[in-house]
Amino acid sequence: MSEVFALRRERLRDRCLAAGSAAALVSRPANVRYLSGTAPAGAVLLLGPGGDELLCPVDPAGDPAAGRPDEHLRLRMLPAAGGDPAVAAAGLLGATNTRSLAVEEHHLTVARHRAIGSVSPGLHLADLAGAVEQQRIIKDEEEISSLRTAAEIADQALGELLESILVGRTERHLALELERRLIDHGAEGPAFPTSVATGPNAGLRRHRPSDRRVEEGHFLSVCLGAAYRGYRSEIGRTFVIGTSPANWQVDLYDLVFAAQRAGREALVPGAACRDVDRAARQVLDAAGHGEGLPQSTGHGVGLEIDEDPQLAPAAMGKLDACVPVTVEPGVHLPGRGGVRIDDTLVVRPEADGGPELLTITTKELLAL
Amino acid sequence: MSEVFALRRERLRDRCLAAGSAAALVSRPANVRYLSGTAPAGAVLLLGPGGDELLCPVDPAGDPAAGRPDEHLRLRMLPAAGGDPAVAAAGLLGATNTRSLAVEEHHLTVARHRAIGSVSPGLHLADLAGAVEQQRIIKDEEEISSLRTAAEIADQALGELLESILVGRTERHLALELERRLIDHGAEGPAFPTSVATGPNAGLRRHRPSDRRVEEGHFLSVCLGAAYRGYRSEIGRTFVIGTSPANWQVDLYDLVFAAQRAGREALVPGAACRDVDRAARQVLDAAGHGEGLPQSTGHGVGLEIDEDPQLAPAAMGKLDACVPVTVEPGVHLPGRGGVRIDDTLVVRPEADGGPELLTITTKELLAL
Repeated sequence: MSEVFALRRERLRDRCLAAGSAAALVSRPANVRYLSGTAPAGAVLLLGPGGDELLCPVDPAGDPAAGRPDEHLRLRMLPAAGGDPAVAAAGLLGATNTRSLAVEEHHLTVARHRAIGSVSPGLHLADLAGAVEQQRIIKDEEEISSLRTAAEIADQALGELLESILVGRTERHLALELERRLIDHGAEGPAFPTSVATGPNAGLRRHRPSDRRVEEGHFLSVCLGAAYRGYRSEIGRTFVIGTSPANWQVDLYDLVFAAQRAGREALVPGAACRDVDRAARQVLDAAGHGEGLPQSTGHGVGLEIDEDPQLAPAAMGKLDACVPVTVEPGVHLPGRGGVRIDDTLVVRPEADGGPELLTITTKELLAL
Repeated sequence: MSEVFALRRERLRDRCLAAGSAAALVSRPANVRYLSGTAPAGAVLLLGPGGDELLCPVDPAGDPAAGRPDEHLRLRMLPAAGGDPAVAAAGLLGATNTRSLAVEEHHLTVARHRAIGSVSPGLHLADLAGAVEQQRIIKDEEEISSLRTAAEIADQALGELLESILVGRTERHLALELERRLIDHGAEGPAFPTSVATGPNAGLRRHRPSDRRVEEGHFLSVCLGAAYRGYRSEIGRTFVIGTSPANWQVDLYDLVFAAQRAGREALVPGAACRDVDRAARQVLDAAGHGEGLPQSTGHGVGLEIDEDPQLAPAAMGKLDACVPVTVEPGVHLPGRGGVRIDDTLVVRPEADGGPELLTITTKELLAL
């Protein structure tokens, strides 16, 4: 297992060397975890000429949820008042003959970057940019297996909620109950703040649960995910409360369902990200809901809940096999509510059966 | 009410002008909220020669928990794919004759800073540094009132937990139940991840709840807080499970209690922060527990759970009246567990009765 991390670091090191830096400093937590198997709070990873080293301000053993560090990695515990580990890492390099250190300019603040630069004045700071994020896009089967488990956990939590009585309960309480159930089923925690939206809130993306209560005849939309071994899944479903949905509700649901299906069906290796977005978006557009649609209709998932690729009109790039993404179009009608349907899928070649659906809760319109 | 925000901005503007910048760009969310009454996701605040403007990538009305923006403030909604609001703000300034813009170098990443600089090449970017954080240290009575309510909510949640049966339940479940109760009592959410630690975990600072179950004869330590109107309180207590604590447990508890009381009693306007820390620390030190103590024995609270001042050996500066801080010494014995006691108090002059205790749950050693 820990070979995996060593190989990932090797790949990054090769890339840095090719760009002229013999050393790299990784500070973004998800990137640290991807390359070392753990990310204790504040830890940074130094890939240096003298080997790889994880600099930790707190003992990683104290936080089991942070994962276990790879055994090929040297661990250096910093004293409690030892300051910024990134500065300490640059200090270590000062003793070697390293001339150029690649750092994550999209993660380090200006103030930290300056502090790193001033500890080793002869050291040139280059930009690692999104090199690690790019490496993270295509997942191995171990990573996909963690995502699969994360998705199963969320399916279970959602399934149990649907069996309980919903009318009269607040969005906030339903969200908390879902999060408790995620943990009951083995999640490390929610993958992101659970969203429960009812009545006029239904269908709003990333709606923060309020004190609004679930009412008969309203839409209820739910979006949740589990974190499992650091990997984060996402599922969103919309229901109708009561015995029979109104015609406008059925029509809106069918429309969003058609858009979501079109997006899912466009997930093939080699497809342009913007074409997947367009497949879903044009269904909504043709029905007159083009205005006010969110920026993207899906995104990558993994160690972070929102990572590359983006499925959006301006997105560059193509999908590869083994890339997990969400497909999550929705329509919100101000004052009335709306519908969102959101799955996590893994892009697979047609020969392997096409996209692998990780979130298997039904997408029929359930009246609860 | 919204006069308050306008006055805070005025004070910051005066400070920037004195330092040579006619404009400031505030990006750190707690700082944005402090100066504008709201902090919708991604919003930045521009204090410019043409007035104050909040640039929002999402509609602040959609997120009631983010607070309501001050009515003296111009709101500018950015289009969904409009890019970084900080860059948009710098672009607006380009049209004026502003020469220098102060930005938060401790918050902006190197990449964002560069993007801001490149949109208006004639504009000099100065460093706002911690100017807003410094303004936030002394609270007004409105802020203290929000903290008081936040502390009451946590007291209520904790009180209810103590009446329930604890043996056999896991740390994770107790933490979730506490968070549910915080929300029941009107919190916007937990102020920070609730920590529940039992057995050998008890007394560990910021312990992440695990699947360990509460057992007879063990210590149980709990640390929680509520967020109310954006303000965050903190309370920590340690209990013994079962009918009668062992002698070592009573002794350890009495020691930490004495240290915590010493820290509380040192909270007077004008006291050096390091002296408050020393008051608590030397009690533990004298009993042979000086090794392995955390870096600080307390910190400021407000719109963030950990803000200035720090109560630590190397801390500079003195306490003022109306500064809310935690006092939270603890001792952890590896393999056996330990004790932490944590209050939120407001520094007040002796004439006003001395430090105001916001977290009023008893600090007697309860056997549950």
